[in-house]
Amino acid sequence: MPTAVTPSVLTRPDDEPTAAALIAAAVETMAVHGYHGTSVRDVAAAAGTSPAVLYHHFESKQRLLVTLLDRGLDVLIAATEEALDLAGDDPAERLGAVVGAHVGVHLESQRESLIGQSEIRSLEPAGRALVVTKRDVQQRTFERVVRDGVRRTVFTTATPDDTARFVSAACTSVAGWYRPGGPLDGPTVIARYRAIALDAVGYRP
Amino acid sequence: MPTAVTPSVLTRPDDEPTAAALIAAAVETMAVHGYHGTSVRDVAAAAGTSPAVLYHHFESKQRLLVTLLDRGLDVLIAATEEALDLAGDDPAERLGAVVGAHVGVHLESQRESLIGQSEIRSLEPAGRALVVTKRDVQQRTFERVVRDGVRRTVFTTATPDDTARFVSAACTSVAGWYRPGGPLDGPTVIARYRAIALDAVGYRP
Repeated sequence: MPTAVTPSVLTRPDDEPTAAALIAAAVETMAVHGYHGTSVRDVAAAAGTSPAVLYHHFESKQRLLVTLLDRGLDVLIAATEEALDLAGDDPAERLGAVVGAHVGVHLESQRESLIGQSEIRSLEPAGRALVVTKRDVQQRTFERVVRDGVRRTVFTTATPDDTARFVSAACTSVAGWYRPGGPLDGPTVIARYRAIALDAVGYRP
Repeated sequence: MPTAVTPSVLTRPDDEPTAAALIAAAVETMAVHGYHGTSVRDVAAAAGTSPAVLYHHFESKQRLLVTLLDRGLDVLIAATEEALDLAGDDPAERLGAVVGAHVGVHLESQRESLIGQSEIRSLEPAGRALVVTKRDVQQRTFERVVRDGVRRTVFTTATPDDTARFVSAACTSVAGWYRPGGPLDGPTVIARYRAIALDAVGYRP
């Protein structure tokens, strides 16, 4: 991969090196110029290759966008499931696990997150259906954890699903404002967002 | 204004009719295709006029985008200030006013809100500085209201500024998921978001 391209969390160990370079280059160029402002030629050039090679690996710019958003959600869902597996049975701990994983992924992959948030409208129907389905999986996890805390009477929110959406949206938004090297480091943001999320669900230990 | 264009909250009574049509057309086209995916010709055609007329009114596509985002923030700030003026002195009532105004504007102008969220990156430096400054004005209002409640010991959050950002981001996000005619009407969303925001700040009456 050319050193000019920042690696992306969206690449996988078994990606062919050229495919990985194209994915990282797509993240880099689309994060700045948007999907419609980025050409196949731009992505190929940033990856140090040609449009023909991009088409060989991804068929189209649309297919490449679907790959970015789909893999981004895979990363998010996997991190959240792993955190939940490690959490105990306590609802507060489970909410903390989901919030920590969700915030953590959005802090570590800000460019990928912002592309994911702004380019759903650029997906054609098949890709959009896939991405929306996976986004809903993550949303259902927040809802399940909040509902469980309400059922066990340690969360007192009267509107669990709305509160789950409120909290998940706030957690996603860190990708938009967080500045690495700024006044708050990642673990501090995660700790504070966990505490605020517990307040938001009306946690009464 | 051609009837094909949905009016936008961003137009003003003293706009020339052609300028108003161009603003509404820019909202309509950019909400679907993004700034970079929308040409001056696209906007002019949607407004039933020509690129030359667009350039006469707005100088450039960039200037038109700055107008959209700048006016969007003016609408948001004005609605919030008006709600605060009408609210009493009680911190819970004041937070409810800010949340209600912020959610209300984002529900009423979903397309404008989504353009505002996704196209800040498409602004050139001067326009971006203006828009970021106004966005910060709104953020400072959330912070001021939360800090005031903490100082008066009715809000118990340990991190007022982070909580203000958490709440404002959640309120902004309604533009992304709300569906008019869906299971929740606007006043219900506002009432629920007010209640969740009060929990999030640790309100203890």
